[in-house]
Amino acid sequence: MTIAIAHLGPTGTNAETAALAYASWLTKKKGQETLLSPYPSIAQTLRSVVHKKVDLAVVPVENSTEGSVAITLDTLWELDRLQIQQELVLPISHALLSHSKSLSQIKTVYSHPQALAQCQKWLEGFLPSVQLIPTNSTTEAVQQISQDPQAGAIAAPRASKLYDVPILAADINDYPDNCTRFWVMGLTPSTSGNRTSIAFSVPANVPGALVKPLQVFAQRGINLSRIESRPTKRSLGEYLFFLDLEASATETSTQEALAELSPYTEVLKIFGSYDVLPISTL
Amino acid sequence: MTIAIAHLGPTGTNAETAALAYASWLTKKKGQETLLSPYPSIAQTLRSVVHKKVDLAVVPVENSTEGSVAITLDTLWELDRLQIQQELVLPISHALLSHSKSLSQIKTVYSHPQALAQCQKWLEGFLPSVQLIPTNSTTEAVQQISQDPQAGAIAAPRASKLYDVPILAADINDYPDNCTRFWVMGLTPSTSGNRTSIAFSVPANVPGALVKPLQVFAQRGINLSRIESRPTKRSLGEYLFFLDLEASATETSTQEALAELSPYTEVLKIFGSYDVLPISTL
Repeated sequence: MTIAIAHLGPTGTNAETAALAYASWLTKKKGQETLLSPYPSIAQTLRSVVHKKVDLAVVPVENSTEGSVAITLDTLWELDRLQIQQELVLPISHALLSHSKSLSQIKTVYSHPQALAQCQKWLEGFLPSVQLIPTNSTTEAVQQISQDPQAGAIAAPRASKLYDVPILAADINDYPDNCTRFWVMGLTPSTSGNRTSIAFSVPANVPGALVKPLQVFAQRGINLSRIESRPTKRSLGEYLFFLDLEASATETSTQEALAELSPYTEVLKIFGSYDVLPISTL
Repeated sequence: MTIAIAHLGPTGTNAETAALAYASWLTKKKGQETLLSPYPSIAQTLRSVVHKKVDLAVVPVENSTEGSVAITLDTLWELDRLQIQQELVLPISHALLSHSKSLSQIKTVYSHPQALAQCQKWLEGFLPSVQLIPTNSTTEAVQQISQDPQAGAIAAPRASKLYDVPILAADINDYPDNCTRFWVMGLTPSTSGNRTSIAFSVPANVPGALVKPLQVFAQRGINLSRIESRPTKRSLGEYLFFLDLEASATETSTQEALAELSPYTEVLKIFGSYDVLPISTL
């Protein structure tokens, strides 16, 4: 059986690179055939799993420079049924692609807002007066610049070959350890793996409303590798919390902690336990 | 003396609306003359205060639907010296501006990514197959559509008059209570006001690293109205925390809590105490 994997497209995005790496791991490790399906947005990528158009979706969750990907967290909370099958950590290197021969000719730079943000210090240093134009994906940026020698696109080095646009400057991300975490989401319940992710809303905004939930884990020596708040969208000052625990849901202490946590929360969602697979640059 | 106030421009942005409201409040309340200065980015808006080109900067901090404005928090952490003089809460209503006579003619919608995100359900419902094009500000979106009857721009109703483009659909934000918090930043130390905002990094990612700091406030009955994490950008899994406290730095219990907090943090920054000024739609 071929496994269909959705990702944010079109071809050449970092999400596709992560999906390709996961597909090749599935093939090597489990002899599994795979098929990649590009979608125009992260929300549609995730919904394609719930609507059973594909088996899995690979979506970005968090970047080491720019932080959480809000649309991923908000859509996971809303869709309710998706489970994390695997985490992938992909090093992200950005390059400036252009048909120009020198930086001094560049008047405009196109890219996804996350990529522009990850290179903002480089842009301020080397191209202080260019116009920055946001696009829906790094690939769309490369498509935009077509034959214009006064424009550049920030994208993965891989896009240079795919779209035949030379690299004018490589490794232009402001922080060398720039990485993005991706989650492989599916409908199969995830119970094994050394990380567990949950999200919850709290009943009322009272002193200590978040202290109790955090104590439940601290008392058992369970480390939180991340805590992220998102607005409930109902009104200013009401939040959901997303927690990543360094523990498996199969461990008794985790099960006890989750049971003790429940009364301190309004809605509690458990996205499953999973392992982390680091990906070397392809 | 005229007070110069920086904001994200060009004219017609929600940041300008907030700055105008604050300026008119300063004039009414304190007889103060003011002058508004638009800047092309939030980072440049904030830096203009540190470089003493202006006296104050009005910047968005958090939206009730889309959450924190990452670039504002990151720039405040980096610049180090700015203090919150005042908080403004502005109701945000989005409209679809277009020269078209009906929704069925619209092929493309331009707007700032935050505005596109705040209207995504409306867009999926009423314009499911249009192309969404991100811009640097809602005003830039209105400028982009010029005379194209097949394009629309999501912007403030105010931009309709300023740029002479009709409103095709009003109040298209997905959540009716859509509000944005703005901070007025300056170099004057802020000590009075019933809210206090701080940010800190923690020495190591160990179980309970965040529990201790939160307990310091919970034990004294000090409510946190917000907790937000941002990556340190050094490596994946290292965070800064931004906290808003419902307390004044002039109260003894707040001073005690901040003193007790210090050893649990690596770097602790106090952005001052301030009051909240709600703004009715202008």
